Amino acid sequence: MSESAAASQRLAFFQSQLQNAPCAAEEPKIKTTMESMTEERQKATFDVKELTYFLDGGEKFTKIREKFMLELERDPTFRMYDMYDVTKDQIRERTMEKFRTIVHYVSAEPVPIFTMRMQTISLIDPGFWTRFGVHYGLFFGALRGSATSAQFSHWVSKGALALNGMVGCFAMTELGHGSNVAGLETTASFDEASDQFIIHTPTITATKWWIGGAAHTATHTVVFAQLIVRGKRYGTKSFVVQLRDTHTYKLMPGINIGDIGKKMGRDGIDNGWIQFTNVRIPRTNMLMKHTKVSRAGEVKEPPMAQLTYGALIQGRVAMVVDSGNIAKKAVTIAGRYAAVRRQFSSNPHDVQETKLIDYAIHQYRLMPLLAQAYAFHFTGVETNKLYDDLMDKLESTQPDDETMGEVIDTLKETHATSAGLKAFCTWSTLSAIEACRQTLGGHGYSAYTGLATTYNDFAVHCTWEGDNTILTLQSGRYLVSCYREALAGKSQPEGVSYLNHLDSLLNLGCGVKTNEEILNFDVIQEAWGVVTANVVKKAGDDFEVSLKAGMSPETAYEECSQARLAAAKIHSFGYIFRRFAQAVKSAPEKLQPVLTKLCLLYGLYSIEQNAGFFLQYRYFTPSQMDYVRGQVNVFCREVRQEYIPLIDAFNYSDYMINSPLGVYDGNIYEKYFDQVKRQNPVGGEHPYLPLIQSLLRRDIEDDEPLEDDDEDDE
Amino acid sequence: MSESAAASQRLAFFQSQLQNAPCAAEEPKIKTTMESMTEERQKATFDVKELTYFLDGGEKFTKIREKFMLELERDPTFRMYDMYDVTKDQIRERTMEKFRTIVHYVSAEPVPIFTMRMQTISLIDPGFWTRFGVHYGLFFGALRGSATSAQFSHWVSKGALALNGMVGCFAMTELGHGSNVAGLETTASFDEASDQFIIHTPTITATKWWIGGAAHTATHTVVFAQLIVRGKRYGTKSFVVQLRDTHTYKLMPGINIGDIGKKMGRDGIDNGWIQFTNVRIPRTNMLMKHTKVSRAGEVKEPPMAQLTYGALIQGRVAMVVDSGNIAKKAVTIAGRYAAVRRQFSSNPHDVQETKLIDYAIHQYRLMPLLAQAYAFHFTGVETNKLYDDLMDKLESTQPDDETMGEVIDTLKETHATSAGLKAFCTWSTLSAIEACRQTLGGHGYSAYTGLATTYNDFAVHCTWEGDNTILTLQSGRYLVSCYREALAGKSQPEGVSYLNHLDSLLNLGCGVKTNEEILNFDVIQEAWGVVTANVVKKAGDDFEVSLKAGMSPETAYEECSQARLAAAKIHSFGYIFRRFAQAVKSAPEKLQPVLTKLCLLYGLYSIEQNAGFFLQYRYFTPSQMDYVRGQVNVFCREVRQEYIPLIDAFNYSDYMINSPLGVYDGNIYEKYFDQVKRQNPVGGEHPYLPLIQSLLRRDIEDDEPLEDDDEDDE
Repeated sequence: MSESAAASQRLAFFQSQLQNAPCAAEEPKIKTTMESMTEERQKATFDVKELTYFLDGGEKFTKIREKFMLELERDPTFRMYDMYDVTKDQIRERTMEKFRTIVHYVSAEPVPIFTMRMQTISLIDPGFWTRFGVHYGLFFGALRGSATSAQFSHWVSKGALALNGMVGCFAMTELGHGSNVAGLETTASFDEASDQFIIHTPTITATKWWIGGAAHTATHTVVFAQLIVRGKRYGTKSFVVQLRDTHTYKLMPGINIGDIGKKMGRDGIDNGWIQFTNVRIPRTNMLMKHTKVSRAGEVKEPPMAQLTYGALIQGRVAMVVDSGNIAKKAVTIAGRYAAVRRQFSSNPHDVQETKLIDYAIHQYRLMPLLAQAYAFHFTGVETNKLYDDLMDKLESTQPDDETMGEVIDTLKETHATSAGLKAFCTWSTLSAIEACRQTLGGHGYSAYTGLATTYNDFAVHCTWEGDNTILTLQSGRYLVSCYREALAGKSQPEGVSYLNHLDSLLNLGCGVKTNEEILNFDVIQEAWGVVTANVVKKAGDDFEVSLKAGMSPETAYEECSQARLAAAKIHSFGYIFRRFAQAVKSAPEKLQPVLTKLCLLYGLYSIEQNAGFFLQYRYFTPSQMDYVRGQVNVFCREVRQEYIPLIDAFNYSDYMINSPLGVYDGNIYEKYFDQVKRQNPVGGEHPYLPLIQSLLRRDIEDDEPLEDDDEDDE
Repeated sequence: MSESAAASQRLAFFQSQLQNAPCAAEEPKIKTTMESMTEERQKATFDVKELTYFLDGGEKFTKIREKFMLELERDPTFRMYDMYDVTKDQIRERTMEKFRTIVHYVSAEPVPIFTMRMQTISLIDPGFWTRFGVHYGLFFGALRGSATSAQFSHWVSKGALALNGMVGCFAMTELGHGSNVAGLETTASFDEASDQFIIHTPTITATKWWIGGAAHTATHTVVFAQLIVRGKRYGTKSFVVQLRDTHTYKLMPGINIGDIGKKMGRDGIDNGWIQFTNVRIPRTNMLMKHTKVSRAGEVKEPPMAQLTYGALIQGRVAMVVDSGNIAKKAVTIAGRYAAVRRQFSSNPHDVQETKLIDYAIHQYRLMPLLAQAYAFHFTGVETNKLYDDLMDKLESTQPDDETMGEVIDTLKETHATSAGLKAFCTWSTLSAIEACRQTLGGHGYSAYTGLATTYNDFAVHCTWEGDNTILTLQSGRYLVSCYREALAGKSQPEGVSYLNHLDSLLNLGCGVKTNEEILNFDVIQEAWGVVTANVVKKAGDDFEVSLKAGMSPETAYEECSQARLAAAKIHSFGYIFRRFAQAVKSAPEKLQPVLTKLCLLYGLYSIEQNAGFFLQYRYFTPSQMDYVRGQVNVFCREVRQEYIPLIDAFNYSDYMINSPLGVYDGNIYEKYFDQVKRQNPVGGEHPYLPLIQSLLRRDIEDDEPLEDDDEDDE
């Protein structure tokens, strides 16, 4: 009740002013929301455009992004203002309409530019991004990755690249199997007599499930099935199967398809289920870049299966980048709202209520999320580079090159790193979206705010392309094995380089003498190094204990899974902090002061969130931890000073934000009200008049039972 | 990749078995999902029914709940299987249809029984629960709480109780003001000449917003507006205003209403906005139980405003109860799925894949949530009792009774406790729903799983009836003031009784000698007591420092808001653990072993989650904290043994669960597939055939530019 008491005081003050003020006194100036926003922009100590260029990788790329935003905004099929009200059927049709425009750019633009275009689209219409990506990323990607060059040419000539004459989907997941691809039940049995494979769904759980584009769009699919030749199983391989006639769109014989229906989000994707009943395809429809089956039924297995990891890594890196972008969008909405929304008064002498962002607690809710969005942005940029370097190395190295071992090490590291980061960044961003939504109070519950939809659309990132828990465990497993290698004296790569100084790190103890020393990138980095080394050691030791107790390595890994999970999470925190600090050091000089504050806030806040580990391994004393907590508040206040310019630097247009509460000019109430009225026009027919009239005018019958007529019988 | 490697091994083993097994060998038995579920039920060491009775407060109440579930299931207007596919307009109409049935029970059933009926409904249809609650809880509740008895009789005679002739809504929130009720802008100016109030919306931000039932349903509203008499403002009071003609449903003069439109969830509620333009109402439409305005324009203010807190507390207690109920529902779905879903194999010699629940990490994800659901259940029961006791006391005490001071103390305590618990339980349950959803992997993203809708519907609990952050700060403020009172020697009530032993608690330090001692209710309780006392002290000390630096109490509270927030959260953990432990001690003897395990798991897990504070204040040493972490895993495994019986004891019918993945018999795949097919029938027209045909059969025009005709000009 304190807040309302404060408000009453304020009101009383205001009233007394009105009553007692001499007539000549100037009216106290009440700022409009736009003026409230403008004053935030005036606080910038840096050039916003310069920061945008730095984030985008140069002015040239900023211009390209701005061009994309404008093109999308003016394209009527990409209109976004009514997206929160369309039905599942409407959004699916509209998503289909967009194919024509975007297909044009696939061939007209170089891949890196087209990728930037798609990244831009993913921010406003993740359903379209996915649906389009199903054809180009998954279906066409599978052809490129798993088809022989003759096969690849064949499918390109049929229209797979131009998306003309065919649209593809990717049938991997089944009703009963997701993460365990090796356990898929669909079979592909070789029939030597006809030189065909028979694709078959043997059980209900073998039904292909979640297949994006299958319900209404795809004419062809790459299907994952158990290769069976002469009764022997060779594991899961991929096959091209035609699903529909490409003219009439009727299903092909033996193909049974249905719609998966309503989802939590991304309803623009027509996910479907598929059953195959003895569907025959030519032998050459099996994608044979790796495993080959000859006319005579001879199976040749590939020498190095792990080279196909590349495609997995790419998807995960894309999600790290997407996490940063969506986090920036969510913070933009919540941040701008907090600059103009006023509620209560922290000072009874103020003539106007206080901006949300001027409350310490609101700073504590938002500023760390702003810092995290920057951290994820830089991590995305860095991870992309790692991936590109890896791909270059893979392409320029032959299997029998001397350096191949090194390349494989890099591959393993990038695979584990991207797995852990994908999980960590998508989880954290999902929570950040919800936290941002809640800072909007009741208005966060309106669909037009955009954050509810953003949450629902984003949530799937935690599951697909590797369930986050499984990925985190994989990353933890990698850390355990690196730890064991490091113990055995083998030098470890950059991402886990702290393991190369195990002795000193584990025995470092309390690393700082004075509190002030903590406010330093190197100290924070060392702190994370010490804690991560200890947490990884804990997982490694648990593993060792289980091994010594006679367990198999698999069971021993299973036993230490909770420790592995913790290790991977802590490792990711430290890793991301290092990426952020590195980026700050490489920033133009004028940007360094503000970015340094942001980066320190991220470091201190994440230490506070994991205080247990820092105290457990005694890197910080309890009183130092109190200091860290206090400094988080101090840095929240520091960053708050120019947080609107820091948000503006993300450079998302109002069209991209698609939330009246996050508009650039701060005119939130009018634009919100306008949107509500446009989408829900006043007047018109009452939707259920007779229903409510009959309810309100009903005869309430007497509930008294009929009188007992015993008397008459007497 | 380890998991798929393991799966390959398992497959290889399986293949070799197939190839090498002598023909006479028995086929290894593969269990169906139903058999997998049955074997879980056989593990029960206790009588499930007995636990249900204990949870429900006795067999009698279980029977009543079962009766309600059956009645709802058979009522066609309450059909739930298609709820994930209805549009906003459809769900609103259907929600209206349900009024007729439920209105009948309002008058036919005693209040406590009707409340149980509504609690049951809230679990399957929270939108209806709210929409109905707007009339009875908010509108009618406002009449009961703020009308004089003559006014109350008047509105009852017009049909307010029978919901016959009128339906009410509750117009408090405005576009620009939510939590700050004192800052509302709508005015109610007394016009002495006509003996009327003029209700007016002076600005766009004064537009009433979010008003449940306003868009299409309500004929009347209680509106909160600034009382202005002879130019003087008296603060926010409530007034009854007619919105629509009760026959034609046309808007009354000066009333302007629109639909708020699409929301994150609870679309069954027709939330609307309202603008009043000089709407005149009789003076007697002001609810005058507290403040009175006479015919002559004299304003009489009430002596004790805080007695109206009662209504606030009731809403918050209801949300604590709802948190427990929804948490139980979410855990039921995720728990049953984990008992029958199999993926990978933790042992290569197994003939069947491993149940999700047999992975240590899955136990760690779910078992603490199961324990938490029990904790919230018992907290809800206890908080209800506190509320009932308080109401009894308030009713039996007169303002001038000697005991009134004591009653006011209890009121303050219950107010602060319910505020903190409402925030803590709704936040934790929202996270739990999402965590449960994610344990279902990809299927958690299907609307038919039910958890996405549950999340979207539940999320509003974190904001309405007091924004969680503001409530938590209020609770923290109460703790700071209790701490200061305790320092001054004043004895504190039960909920914060640890403050009565400040000296000993603050100096206790490491409270246990051997690790085993930790596994004890009293020790865990003491541990929370010590940590809470320290965290509250920290907030109190910060407050004191600010005061001494010359700040006003308001500013000093603002300065320590982060510490207050932490104090309130930690206090809630300890409070809930005490409620849980208390309930276990009062349980029938045969139930004690299993409930003791659950309660210890809750205690240990919540200590682990807050390890930083326990290490900071040195209640546990780092090695004891390691022991706690290890024991969390041990207790997860223990609870896992009979977790399905523990879930069954919640006693929700399949109808109530409304998720094919959480069905009682474990037949998840068939029921899921059936639901998908029923809601999305196969066959029928292609929804956008011409669109896709024209895309796939488009002429790709030659992009070569026209040749330059310079040559001809030469």
